[in-house]
Amino acid sequence: MDTVTVPSKPTWIAADWGTTHLRLWALDAHNQVLAVSHSDDGIMRVPDGAFEEALLRRIEPWLDGADLRPGRAIPVIACGMIGARGGWREVPYAAIPLDPSCLNPVEVPTHDPRIRFTIQPGVAQADPADIIRGEETQITGAIRLSRRPDGVLCLPGTHSKWVSVRAGRIVRFQTSMTGEIFDLLTHRSVLRDVTAAPADAAGDDPRPAFARGVADALAQPHKLLPWLFRLRAENRLNTLSPRTARARLSGLLIGADLAGAREYWDGQTVGIVGADALAALYHDALAAAGTRGVQIDATQATLEGLSLAHDLFRSPAAP
Amino acid sequence: MDTVTVPSKPTWIAADWGTTHLRLWALDAHNQVLAVSHSDDGIMRVPDGAFEEALLRRIEPWLDGADLRPGRAIPVIACGMIGARGGWREVPYAAIPLDPSCLNPVEVPTHDPRIRFTIQPGVAQADPADIIRGEETQITGAIRLSRRPDGVLCLPGTHSKWVSVRAGRIVRFQTSMTGEIFDLLTHRSVLRDVTAAPADAAGDDPRPAFARGVADALAQPHKLLPWLFRLRAENRLNTLSPRTARARLSGLLIGADLAGAREYWDGQTVGIVGADALAALYHDALAAAGTRGVQIDATQATLEGLSLAHDLFRSPAAP
Repeated sequence: MDTVTVPSKPTWIAADWGTTHLRLWALDAHNQVLAVSHSDDGIMRVPDGAFEEALLRRIEPWLDGADLRPGRAIPVIACGMIGARGGWREVPYAAIPLDPSCLNPVEVPTHDPRIRFTIQPGVAQADPADIIRGEETQITGAIRLSRRPDGVLCLPGTHSKWVSVRAGRIVRFQTSMTGEIFDLLTHRSVLRDVTAAPADAAGDDPRPAFARGVADALAQPHKLLPWLFRLRAENRLNTLSPRTARARLSGLLIGADLAGAREYWDGQTVGIVGADALAALYHDALAAAGTRGVQIDATQATLEGLSLAHDLFRSPAAP
Repeated sequence: MDTVTVPSKPTWIAADWGTTHLRLWALDAHNQVLAVSHSDDGIMRVPDGAFEEALLRRIEPWLDGADLRPGRAIPVIACGMIGARGGWREVPYAAIPLDPSCLNPVEVPTHDPRIRFTIQPGVAQADPADIIRGEETQITGAIRLSRRPDGVLCLPGTHSKWVSVRAGRIVRFQTSMTGEIFDLLTHRSVLRDVTAAPADAAGDDPRPAFARGVADALAQPHKLLPWLFRLRAENRLNTLSPRTARARLSGLLIGADLAGAREYWDGQTVGIVGADALAALYHDALAAAGTRGVQIDATQATLEGLSLAHDLFRSPAAP
């Protein structure tokens, strides 16, 4: 998919560059979006480290009539796995506690004089050891969007993140392999056939099965491994439908995620970064545990975080 | 691998026929092994349901000079996925509580008059729903070998089983997806590189890392999902070696398995069916939890269970 339209000349370009996707936005001086380009030019798809070429192929229409005088190059502010090992440049992690205004983008030299390319650092926590690469920008954006100096954020996904914010700073976080394990179990495990329900399959309302999975995992998280196999047994013995099994599996894993993050959300209102079906599931699971979730648009959070980084890039703090 | 040797004419043939393997033993009237054939003719490898052909190809040398008179056919007593959906014949599950002497083999007609082929039923538990297919024979064999009417058995593996035995009967059991999840994480997940240590890699003693994983998972099993990701973070931040990460992962999953099965092993002596490295890990993990494990040879248990089935086949109980 590529939805480029030629804008008036952008002030800067925002980039969310992950393993499997490259999302680009052209913005004006007021951070208004002039044009968008979404493609699957993730870092896995870029051959031989040709990242600059891959980028230019997508933003070339936005550079028409670029000002070539020194100091007038267009900043491209990127976040995501582009800053990981195997990306354009491995950018070091910033340490917690972290004030978003200290997350300074790192400039990577380009051959093309029309742009200046920067990458957002990830964030590291020493104990327990944990890392963020890409979501840090959604987090700083969500903190700014929420206008609340203290709170909790949840970023559901392949590796879901729980983040504690105090006085506007990231003070603690935790990553769960929830989404990746769901994908492995539904695509590669003995549960593949058991849970192979097309998204639009007709059948029973999956919500009770999801709710039961959440409740089971929250009440007895130590039973996760036997509960996974039980889906197969119920399929064989009770002809559990794939649609129901899939919803229960989703509930079990999200419930296990919540059980492992209770100290983050218990007694809090949680900002859930995401407005998709997955974010809605986390919202429902938290509600079942008596906790309120407020959904925050993920793209808006990414753009807000990249805008903050752009501000820092234009006006670097005194050393 | 095929280690057929031509024996004196067998009284019966034992078969352990799983998804990826076919193990055959020729036995005399005293259940002494005359010859062995191990191959990878698992049910996944047998095309178009040609199970009889696959079997005969392996046992043909043992049928030389077979007695063709009625009633003299050689019994082949099989257990494993050969009795599952997708096998030769789907054999119904027997219900618990189950006396091993009631696990009657089901005969499947063959074209070849020299053999009579039977399959062991699996075992089902209604609540919580759970199933056994293949291990039931190791279990009945282990019960007979142990000569103890009450106890607990653990069968480590892709889907590890915990079994409670009372008055010689299987009264309850639980399956964990422990081994399958270890395989998925080490082969297909973001932890693949992090844990990619050759078995003979030199390096630190992996036992402390394994013990730490077990202790962590037993103490806080609800933290399993974040602990998995922490292996990746420690690799990035602390250059955790793959050998150490792999041992810790193994400890975390076996510890989680134990945490979910505490009501089986707590205060008991556990018969661990297996004498391989995996069984030794379960032995060590149980020891760390203050529980004694006694290892039982898995092949011996399988043969003992198939011998019991052969006895039942020769002398069926009155209806």
